[in-house]
Amino acid sequence: LPDRVLRAMERPMINHRGREMPRLLEEIISRLKVVFGTERARIALFPGSGAGAMEAAVVNTVSAGDRVLAFSCGFFGDLFADVVRAFGARVELVRVETGGAVTPEVVAARLASDSGGRVKAITLVHNETSTGVTCDVGAVAAEVRRLGHPALILVDMVSSLGSLEFLFDEWDVDVAVAGTQKGLMLPPGIAVVCVSERALASSERVTTPRRLYDWRPVFETLDAEGFLPTTPPTSLLFGLREALAMLVEEEGLAAVYKRHHRLAEAVRQALAALDVGIVCRDPARASDTVTAALTPPGVDANAVIRAGLERLNVEFGAGIAELNGRVFRIGHMGSLNDLETIAVVAGAELALALAGAPVRVGAGLAAAQCYLAERLSAAERDDDV
Amino acid sequence: LPDRVLRAMERPMINHRGREMPRLLEEIISRLKVVFGTERARIALFPGSGAGAMEAAVVNTVSAGDRVLAFSCGFFGDLFADVVRAFGARVELVRVETGGAVTPEVVAARLASDSGGRVKAITLVHNETSTGVTCDVGAVAAEVRRLGHPALILVDMVSSLGSLEFLFDEWDVDVAVAGTQKGLMLPPGIAVVCVSERALASSERVTTPRRLYDWRPVFETLDAEGFLPTTPPTSLLFGLREALAMLVEEEGLAAVYKRHHRLAEAVRQALAALDVGIVCRDPARASDTVTAALTPPGVDANAVIRAGLERLNVEFGAGIAELNGRVFRIGHMGSLNDLETIAVVAGAELALALAGAPVRVGAGLAAAQCYLAERLSAAERDDDV
Amino acid sequence: LPDRVLRAMERPMINHRGREMPRLLEEIISRLKVVFGTERARIALFPGSGAGAMEAAVVNTVSAGDRVLAFSCGFFGDLFADVVRAFGARVELVRVETGGAVTPEVVAARLASDSGGRVKAITLVHNETSTGVTCDVGAVAAEVRRLGHPALILVDMVSSLGSLEFLFDEWDVDVAVAGTQKGLMLPPGIAVVCVSERALASSERVTTPRRLYDWRPVFETLDAEGFLPTTPPTSLLFGLREALAMLVEEEGLAAVYKRHHRLAEAVRQALAALDVGIVCRDPARASDTVTAALTPPGVDANAVIRAGLERLNVEFGAGIAELNGRVFRIGHMGSLNDLETIAVVAGAELALALAGAPVRVGAGLAAAQCYLAERLSAAERDDDV
Amino acid sequence: LPDRVLRAMERPMINHRGREMPRLLEEIISRLKVVFGTERARIALFPGSGAGAMEAAVVNTVSAGDRVLAFSCGFFGDLFADVVRAFGARVELVRVETGGAVTPEVVAARLASDSGGRVKAITLVHNETSTGVTCDVGAVAAEVRRLGHPALILVDMVSSLGSLEFLFDEWDVDVAVAGTQKGLMLPPGIAVVCVSERALASSERVTTPRRLYDWRPVFETLDAEGFLPTTPPTSLLFGLREALAMLVEEEGLAAVYKRHHRLAEAVRQALAALDVGIVCRDPARASDTVTAALTPPGVDANAVIRAGLERLNVEFGAGIAELNGRVFRIGHMGSLNDLETIAVVAGAELALALAGAPVRVGAGLAAAQCYLAERLSAAERDDDV
Repeated sequence: LPDRVLRAMERPMINHRGREMPRLLEEIISRLKVVFGTERARIALFPGSGAGAMEAAVVNTVSAGDRVLAFSCGFFGDLFADVVRAFGARVELVRVETGGAVTPEVVAARLASDSGGRVKAITLVHNETSTGVTCDVGAVAAEVRRLGHPALILVDMVSSLGSLEFLFDEWDVDVAVAGTQKGLMLPPGIAVVCVSERALASSERVTTPRRLYDWRPVFETLDAEGFLPTTPPTSLLFGLREALAMLVEEEGLAAVYKRHHRLAEAVRQALAALDVGIVCRDPARASDTVTAALTPPGVDANAVIRAGLERLNVEFGAGIAELNGRVFRIGHMGSLNDLETIAVVAGAELALALAGAPVRVGAGLAAAQCYLAERLSAAERDDDV
Repeated sequence: LPDRVLRAMERPMINHRGREMPRLLEEIISRLKVVFGTERARIALFPGSGAGAMEAAVVNTVSAGDRVLAFSCGFFGDLFADVVRAFGARVELVRVETGGAVTPEVVAARLASDSGGRVKAITLVHNETSTGVTCDVGAVAAEVRRLGHPALILVDMVSSLGSLEFLFDEWDVDVAVAGTQKGLMLPPGIAVVCVSERALASSERVTTPRRLYDWRPVFETLDAEGFLPTTPPTSLLFGLREALAMLVEEEGLAAVYKRHHRLAEAVRQALAALDVGIVCRDPARASDTVTAALTPPGVDANAVIRAGLERLNVEFGAGIAELNGRVFRIGHMGSLNDLETIAVVAGAELALALAGAPVRVGAGLAAAQCYLAERLSAAERDDDV
Repeated sequence: LPDRVLRAMERPMINHRGREMPRLLEEIISRLKVVFGTERARIALFPGSGAGAMEAAVVNTVSAGDRVLAFSCGFFGDLFADVVRAFGARVELVRVETGGAVTPEVVAARLASDSGGRVKAITLVHNETSTGVTCDVGAVAAEVRRLGHPALILVDMVSSLGSLEFLFDEWDVDVAVAGTQKGLMLPPGIAVVCVSERALASSERVTTPRRLYDWRPVFETLDAEGFLPTTPPTSLLFGLREALAMLVEEEGLAAVYKRHHRLAEAVRQALAALDVGIVCRDPARASDTVTAALTPPGVDANAVIRAGLERLNVEFGAGIAELNGRVFRIGHMGSLNDLETIAVVAGAELALALAGAPVRVGAGLAAAQCYLAERLSAAERDDDV
Repeated sequence: LPDRVLRAMERPMINHRGREMPRLLEEIISRLKVVFGTERARIALFPGSGAGAMEAAVVNTVSAGDRVLAFSCGFFGDLFADVVRAFGARVELVRVETGGAVTPEVVAARLASDSGGRVKAITLVHNETSTGVTCDVGAVAAEVRRLGHPALILVDMVSSLGSLEFLFDEWDVDVAVAGTQKGLMLPPGIAVVCVSERALASSERVTTPRRLYDWRPVFETLDAEGFLPTTPPTSLLFGLREALAMLVEEEGLAAVYKRHHRLAEAVRQALAALDVGIVCRDPARASDTVTAALTPPGVDANAVIRAGLERLNVEFGAGIAELNGRVFRIGHMGSLNDLETIAVVAGAELALALAGAPVRVGAGLAAAQCYLAERLSAAERDDDV
């Protein structure tokens, strides 16, 4: 949580229908469009976290009884299926093996059998944070469109928005959802939903009862008056504007994505040098925001996490569901920089050692450092040209 | 928005499933129970504003096709009816004339005809902020119970929680809902719902599809783990704890309610001295949190509001819906004190004069000041005894 | 202390010799020149409060054994004499009766007898905050120059800088000193000194040992490097820039001075209507930043102050030295606005009544309010033209 | 600057003679005594930075014409001599070669020739931050006392207070001075002076003119009223209380000193592994708060600093005076922890490489990491016992 963003939020409360609001919302929405990679889609903001954004995606696109294919490679893919199911759709969960990715082939195989085009929507998770696997949403969506299938493509971007490249228009996605508390570097409280024209049109025919998460009044009120229909968490809006300015205007999204890749790669090289495996099987699909590390046999991953927290003041994520105890997750998103990544790697090494893992302390650090030094020299050379 | 509350929120983000969270939630919930006037009810927190709290009340108590009586004396009563209608219930809106209050008689008259007890729920607004009228919820609920009617009693407390006395248990209410942005003196972002055992039991049979605003997983997760099931706006939780400490432990609720009454009465005496009418017709039902003042014929209420904002740095509320242009609303809730109320009265006088109203500048001030001086002397005498 | 200024100070510490510093200092100094009313003088900043600024004025202009005339009409004038005396000068204190002002006549009478021009410096207090009396520094300085006397004119502006008009160049003053904690609306911590060319030249010959408050290295380091020679309180510098932007660029000094006069006049009219006297005898010299009110016979001024603090949450200043118990001081400086002034007047009325003074509660308020209403209408008319 | 300390300072301004102040000052002073290692001495606070504290030490202990021996091993030792000289004393500067320490032998050699005891005071710098050398003040003071010499011992603790152990009473020091902006982790603005009974008694006979930095009225006003005689920077006082609570009560001074030693040793081991020298010649006297690293021949130290700042977001200190260009200084004080130190070492390696130094990237990191791992295991074992 960058200090600047925290400070931007420390403003006295403003009238949520006051004069400042339309411009504030306009600035936020236009920058969010850049982050989603869209010019044509609409952006709705709701009170709520990522779960609220998922619910908004579902209640506006799926009616009771609709058929939905939920593609999943982990916990958050399963969760998306649960949300759809809660609103009465007939959900089929297509679960890829843990460590794998949802691929165009997997999706094509299932959609192929639906020649009647009865599947109303498919759900995808851009970045499965429980396993550290990123889905190539562009390739999957291209496959759906190539098959001529009319299904709406709903994408969970909760852990990727602002951290991993997304091209909503080019990939022809229908709904993408996120909260503010991950890549946007804010406390939770605002749900963000990006909606294609196709999804918007389709929502008119959806029968799921809804009110607060109905996106139609949001777009109507924004268009007519520049406000949101319900009181938004105003302090978060100020923080959101600041965080988006940092991402989009100051560092620039291309640089943000490049930085995330460099830091993630440093972490992966460090783990490789320590002979510590990761959950993701396909290096090309390894997440640039989180790495799920597998502890060596006999080493309790939760002991690694405890050692980090209590001894080293570094917080690793716990393994989720069946990965608990076998996995500790290393986050490398948000405003992290090179030296902070080195510190995180140092923390991982030391925590592993304290938990009894037979790692050669310093080997991971050296690998990460050499990789970063090499990228730094390369950047230096590029600047010189 | 008190400075202390703002500062309490300025904390670095904490893990919403971290060690601090259960105690923080426990402290908040136990104090909220005091504010709702309950020992037996459950308290659920959701991301969202007052509108989210209303939606939570509805999706957990009403199924499509249920009969609901929505009693209203203004804009927010009508809104409650709309929310219920959005989820498929058969809503009958019982609208009291503007300026009047929903009375036990009005409610009895309607329920009497429902001898079969088919009305599933009734909705009430504790404090109708568009007209400045407070409903005697205790008397209305007593009447419902006296009739032996099984309807659930759902109450909108959005503009009264923490400002006006409420006795959830004693009055035998079923669901009471509020946000954080009014009497709790916080930015918006958390929806608060108080649920009776009867309402909780009833919610098991409700068929409305719901997930984020389903209160069952909230109570289950709180009971089992001490957390909330979805990421809450953590910074607001810190602010909420601080605001509740100020209300419940420091000033004390009895003193808060007494102060609101004294300041509201000072405003009313000032308006009377200026010959400026108010919307509320029954003095006994005049709201202690907001006064809706009627401008004299020919004087545009919005001109009064503009003069206040642009010339005097004081913000009056605009008339809502059909009251727009005829009414400006004077708020006297939150942490306002005696001298600040005098400043608000001074602002009303001057803004009326600037907008062309034939008021005797100083007369309202003198009336308010004499009333406060008299209350102050009385308090002095009481202290002396 | 305006919220904006507080927030400007909440920045992480910066290197006091870092890149940002020269521009920050340049912005501060150029705006301070506007506030002092100078183009030709130099501005030095030192760590310290108003007392530090006084000490800086003295150690750079007066040597042991020098003759100095200290003109005083109250506590702070006497204090200035004490500071000069501490550094070994032969100080003659010329004390005007309490409630009076130091006038050109008083000064001329003393300087006339010094035909040899042996008096090295005279000290004046622009705004004597213990009695609420403002000195016409321009007229006094003109008299000194008319007499052809070479004495340096040293002026204490601790309680007037940024609140009352000052024309350093036009009045031909030599040293003017202030802190940051009054009219500049900051916490204490920076001493500000404005130095004429004559004073600067003279300081080269001064023999008083000095180092931290020696202004020569300050000017040298600012000229050569853009820094201050000793570590300044950096957080205050950010606050100072913000406060000066508010005064000089946003509201504008002319408007600030006019507002102070209007609010002071409202307070004085209120006291007159209540038959409460003030210490200042000459209405033309009544201070626009503070009014020292005399309680009626038999009424303890400290009881008024206590009633304000404990009952009404308003803080009046205590009478200083021999005025203690007879005087309570009403401040009306900084960012106060019209309605806040009304609140202060209401507090004074109520506190007087609580302390047993026979005041007609409401009479002062009405007088202040009518005066403000009249000024407001006049401003309205002026805008219309 | 820890976030907690920043937030503690974000309080609305308080009356510097208000009710809260005596307790606040009492809490600060009692904790400062612990940090200075004294029960018998007095603590005075002045507005100002470390330079102000030095000036206070001098003006209260030395009169014009007094003989003073200023022992120095670098820039800040020389500076102390300059301050003494500015107030008219006859100062003899005893300069140890750069990289060396002021030892008991050096001091004894000079004092021995002063059999008449005419030297009024000696000045020492506890931690010479320009060279990264710590003086064994205890041993030096013991030598002075052993010789029976009556000189007052004045010690500059600007860069050591709260970071390196100091035992004022046990070592029998006379005056120790510091600011708030180094080990106390605050912005600059308060000067802190610790005064022995002997120094206090002696100050009565000192003839140097002084007022603001006269410590006598400070002690008198504190004793009589609990206030400071001049307006202190109140926001810093709140920050100071918080910072002292963190040092003295939470982490504990012994742990703070131990942590500084561990982190400094990690930095030194890293530099040794990289074949990068340091200015300090005697390993036993190497500073635990700052390491002055010597760049290899042909490598511009300022290029290292620039690379750190521009490429890596890490700030190294520049070489001071004749060390500029040859030295970059690595700070390891305040609230730094193990992993942050690793990040700083990583930054030093990479910055050296970017500036063209022939360092083996990763070697320093590995050395520091192995040292920390070893200390961590040792601590683990100790906990187990």
